[in-house]
Amino acid sequence: MHKLIQYTLCPNSRSIRLLMAELGLETALEDENPWEWRAEFLTLNPSGELPVLFHEEGPLIAGVYAISEFIDEDMRAQSVGGGSVGVKTIFPGNRVDRAEVRRLTDWFLHKMDSEVTSHLLHEKVYSGYLSGENAAPNTDALRVARENLRYHMSYITHLMGERTWLAGTELSFADLIAASQLSVADYLGEVPWEEYEDAKLWYARIKSRPSFRALLADRIPGVAPPEHYDDLDF
Amino acid sequence: MHKLIQYTLCPNSRSIRLLMAELGLETALEDENPWEWRAEFLTLNPSGELPVLFHEEGPLIAGVYAISEFIDEDMRAQSVGGGSVGVKTIFPGNRVDRAEVRRLTDWFLHKMDSEVTSHLLHEKVYSGYLSGENAAPNTDALRVARENLRYHMSYITHLMGERTWLAGTELSFADLIAASQLSVADYLGEVPWEEYEDAKLWYARIKSRPSFRALLADRIPGVAPPEHYDDLDF
Repeated sequence: MHKLIQYTLCPNSRSIRLLMAELGLETALEDENPWEWRAEFLTLNPSGELPVLFHEEGPLIAGVYAISEFIDEDMRAQSVGGGSVGVKTIFPGNRVDRAEVRRLTDWFLHKMDSEVTSHLLHEKVYSGYLSGENAAPNTDALRVARENLRYHMSYITHLMGERTWLAGTELSFADLIAASQLSVADYLGEVPWEEYEDAKLWYARIKSRPSFRALLADRIPGVAPPEHYDDLDF
Repeated sequence: MHKLIQYTLCPNSRSIRLLMAELGLETALEDENPWEWRAEFLTLNPSGELPVLFHEEGPLIAGVYAISEFIDEDMRAQSVGGGSVGVKTIFPGNRVDRAEVRRLTDWFLHKMDSEVTSHLLHEKVYSGYLSGENAAPNTDALRVARENLRYHMSYITHLMGERTWLAGTELSFADLIAASQLSVADYLGEVPWEEYEDAKLWYARIKSRPSFRALLADRIPGVAPPEHYDDLDF
């Protein structure tokens, strides 16, 4: 069985949990608190970033980019070896299709994370664990993150006005990373769903997939999600 | 011929210029100033990020991640079709080797950029163009970027104590993106080469490659590089 070093509310960890579940790859989870910067964890991944995968065949693979591409290459290689035609992939289509998956993966993995989710997590979760109960969130940082979130909701709404899934006609890793980012913002009660109907319908479809169930059952100490968080008809 | 929309001192643009040159793919350059956020450019890449590639066979591909993987897939596909055994690739080796290339690509593309290069560029170049001659760099931001640069120089030195190239025995895209980041810091006179001998030797090897020549000839208005910038025996 594979093992994933991860943190419950880390969007990057969540994207790989979804990826493994979508591809039917059984994966045990081991928790790591990203704000602790433990020396033992830094020996596994010197960048300090989550998640890290111990692949069941040996290699340790660090970070969303390396893990997602490794797993995809692995699935394709196995499929050719086994003589099977249909490959289970989260980078579907031809090279041009995959370039669009990767453009959007980059968008949600880095742009949305740095403009929205990392600030929400820092102000509403990590700073509380670091400073104790006296921690007050930086309201300026939260205000900017909330404004930025509306911009990303608009972009998802725009894409879903033209497509079945974010990158085209098939579910791809772009959907998984975007939904992971949004699931963290949603846990923290920050997503203005009612103003972005097409984005909400897209998220409702992802949320209903079996791969998403474990994420909806997640809870962290001291921060409860809003009631609609695990409601499939939110 | 391919066409790359890029900016002279953008490290991401530089990494794709190196990639195309290493693979022998002739590419015309078209300049775009990233601080201007021109509406026409945002229609090409809504994220506003450079570079953007107009591939000569049609597709427009945005961002380092999508471009580098697309070009690699394209080279591999052509090679199989042409019956050639040796594939020119910047993701060399087996799946595990490539995971290491991708881990380090991610490191220099995102971690070093957000901790070092983006701040140097903003304080020493963009803010001058945006505010005119009255612009004073934020000295706190510069101080932190310089401290962070030493950490990345140490990491390169550490890797080069064990390896021929950053990710292993072969030149890979990790070398190209790391050298691109450093070349921008070097143009701005910020790299303490003498304290990091192994990193300097590695950079000297990359700097001497034919692919690097065009980068060493680059100049931007109002900011001259130090004398050693284009000296191969610096």
